[in-house]
Amino acid sequence: TIDPDRLWRSIMETAAIGGTPKGGISRLALTDRDRQARDWLKSACEDLGCTVTVDEVGNMFAVRPGRLDVPPIAVGSHLDTQPTGGKFDGILGVLAGLELLRTLDEAGYETNAPLMLVNWTNEEGSRFSPAMLGSGVHAGVFDRAYADSRTDRQGVTFGEALDEIGYRGPAKVGSTAFGAMFELHIEQGPILEAEEKAIGVVTGVQGMRWYEIALTGREAHTGSTPMSLRRDALVGAARIIGAVEAIARTHPPGVGTVGLVEVGPNSRNVIPGHVFLTVDFRHPDDAALDVMEEALFATVEEAGRASGLEHALRQVWNSPAVAFDPALVDAVRRAADGLGLSWREIVSGAGHDAAYVARIAPTTMIFVPCAGGLSHNEAEATSYEECRAGAQVLLAAVLDHDRR
Amino acid sequence: TIDPDRLWRSIMETAAIGGTPKGGISRLALTDRDRQARDWLKSACEDLGCTVTVDEVGNMFAVRPGRLDVPPIAVGSHLDTQPTGGKFDGILGVLAGLELLRTLDEAGYETNAPLMLVNWTNEEGSRFSPAMLGSGVHAGVFDRAYADSRTDRQGVTFGEALDEIGYRGPAKVGSTAFGAMFELHIEQGPILEAEEKAIGVVTGVQGMRWYEIALTGREAHTGSTPMSLRRDALVGAARIIGAVEAIARTHPPGVGTVGLVEVGPNSRNVIPGHVFLTVDFRHPDDAALDVMEEALFATVEEAGRASGLEHALRQVWNSPAVAFDPALVDAVRRAADGLGLSWREIVSGAGHDAAYVARIAPTTMIFVPCAGGLSHNEAEATSYEECRAGAQVLLAAVLDHDRR
Ligand SMILES: NC(=O)NCCC(=O)O
Ligand SMILES: NC(=O)NCCC(=O)O
Repeated sequence: TIDPDRLWRSIMETAAIGGTPKGGISRLALTDRDRQARDWLKSACEDLGCTVTVDEVGNMFAVRPGRLDVPPIAVGSHLDTQPTGGKFDGILGVLAGLELLRTLDEAGYETNAPLMLVNWTNEEGSRFSPAMLGSGVHAGVFDRAYADSRTDRQGVTFGEALDEIGYRGPAKVGSTAFGAMFELHIEQGPILEAEEKAIGVVTGVQGMRWYEIALTGREAHTGSTPMSLRRDALVGAARIIGAVEAIARTHPPGVGTVGLVEVGPNSRNVIPGHVFLTVDFRHPDDAALDVMEEALFATVEEAGRASGLEHALRQVWNSPAVAFDPALVDAVRRAADGLGLSWREIVSGAGHDAAYVARIAPTTMIFVPCAGGLSHNEAEATSYEECRAGAQVLLAAVLDHDRR
Repeated sequence: TIDPDRLWRSIMETAAIGGTPKGGISRLALTDRDRQARDWLKSACEDLGCTVTVDEVGNMFAVRPGRLDVPPIAVGSHLDTQPTGGKFDGILGVLAGLELLRTLDEAGYETNAPLMLVNWTNEEGSRFSPAMLGSGVHAGVFDRAYADSRTDRQGVTFGEALDEIGYRGPAKVGSTAFGAMFELHIEQGPILEAEEKAIGVVTGVQGMRWYEIALTGREAHTGSTPMSLRRDALVGAARIIGAVEAIARTHPPGVGTVGLVEVGPNSRNVIPGHVFLTVDFRHPDDAALDVMEEALFATVEEAGRASGLEHALRQVWNSPAVAFDPALVDAVRRAADGLGLSWREIVSGAGHDAAYVARIAPTTMIFVPCAGGLSHNEAEATSYEECRAGAQVLLAAVLDHDRR
């Protein structure tokens, strides 16, 4: 049995690293705050006698040996957050993994397979796009040079930031073998709460695609430039923002969002000459994403024509829908049943490192509810009891899998 | 006769202060670059034996004595620019005024009234809203405390920035008397060029109003939040941006622009929870602006309702339409005719310090064309010949007025 007090304390203790006045966390990937959270985790794992290795893109692996010389069973998630993120997204998965190691240590329990706690680099994709970059490199989806070259909106590269915080490790990416991986995470959506289920048995992750759009019009004076002579990049952007919402609504249960917009020169009395914006489309069915993508291309074309803009549209990320390993999904179901917890099957709306790990090893996830389905928000909240239930299912599922 | 080479040299020399690779100027009000341009002007005026005084909001006045003890005839404009502004907007008016002083000095010409060259603080309104803040305080439209309290988007106040660059002077605001003011400026619009006129005889300035809108929705995850549960502040903003354009087009010759947008938290996979945006409406008829304003209020209400947003809308500036002094307008017309230059009457689409000075003294303006009507753009261009013609008309109109 895990110690829910210890788990909760570790969540609250690390929440101070980048803690915000509104009760959330601001801890973007590869910032000094990320470094502090990593240092905390490293020392907590070393206190348990685990060996912590770091690979060339900063992924951290803490191994607790097992009886057999087989690839480890992994648990974990990520410690980076959104600019105004919550205390649980990713963090619960890492700290519940730590709690699992602590529980087994205290009980003197020896597993067959080694256990491995993982902290993946830049899962959020907020500072460096795309999301799940560390696990993506590990799984061979991206190469290391690609990761190193990603830049934040200030022009700092992933590689520079990684070196800066001292977390470029010697382990070659992908060299760490995985026998299986279980990732505990908050749902980040409203379904479990609405249906009063304690546990989400996650069967897969929906497809997701990211786009970058650059619109170029002409900066001009807002007072003396007639409407008919304008090439207003923001008017074009507004059309696209509206269309993204409309495209998503006409492809249920798809979702579509413009999350980031930068306007140049961004001055009250200058007609915007430049707009950079991003689009995030998701759908459980990759074929539907193809249709949404086509509609987006047509929209950008049309908006550009209507406002006399040059436009560049690029798909910068395509993460197809993923189905998790049936045997591991079963292990989670049995664990929830064994603990008498209510559960339902669920497809993840959010992307997770587990989606990429699934390419190289049997993988699944466990969800717990969060208040109002709210995530990527400082008010994100999962209760003590919900965290306890999730961590307990994680432990039971891992041990179940280890016994087979 | 003014020296066009000397005028052009002074324009090119000062254009280096904040000069951009694209040939424009980035010299926001009360930055160190603004300080450098002010220092340059001060020393140029002192070289002519003029006394330079600075008032409590940083407006600079350089006086060349006349024969009579009467209020001076003022010329001038502003030296601040947009973030990516041109080399002529405001600057031509100040440096042509300097050229006028130099020409009279060289010729040993003594005017009846003293002449006064003015550099107004924060005309652009880009760093500190509203525009024409220095001349507005001088004319009693705003009080000094209001000016001091204006903040830029980083939270620095006008007062702090003014103290920082050392340009808070001892002269009480409004204490400098004006007998009249002539402001030479580039048109910033396409009319003179299209009609091949060398000079715009400016009869007035259209009305202009600025608004600030803050929209608050709810930050949430872009992947796991169904479309129906969203409160996306950016979707609301897009509706408003589209409506501002539509409102302007249905009230010709009115114009409407959203120039500045800030999105929070501005992360690709977070539904925007906050958007701040500004609206700029202009029309030669104040009654039409009332109608446009009403439509804006209805739009914001509607956009807020449609996306489930809280919204705050404030009018932050209202500068009614201005008619310039008929006698001074005549003086400009006579000057253009006397020099054999083609001209047409024109109402300014842009705001100018002259619009506020008109409240306390007879005032008018002289326009010269700019290429493609382009301003608030680094590519802003007015030719050597056009600058020469404008400065020559300025000199002739001032001397004509001085003789009466
Ligand atoms: N779980 C999570 O929030 N991941 C970030 C990647 C995504 O946008 O889904
Ligand atoms: N002339 C000029 O660009 N003034 C700035 C104020 C305005 O927006 O009109």
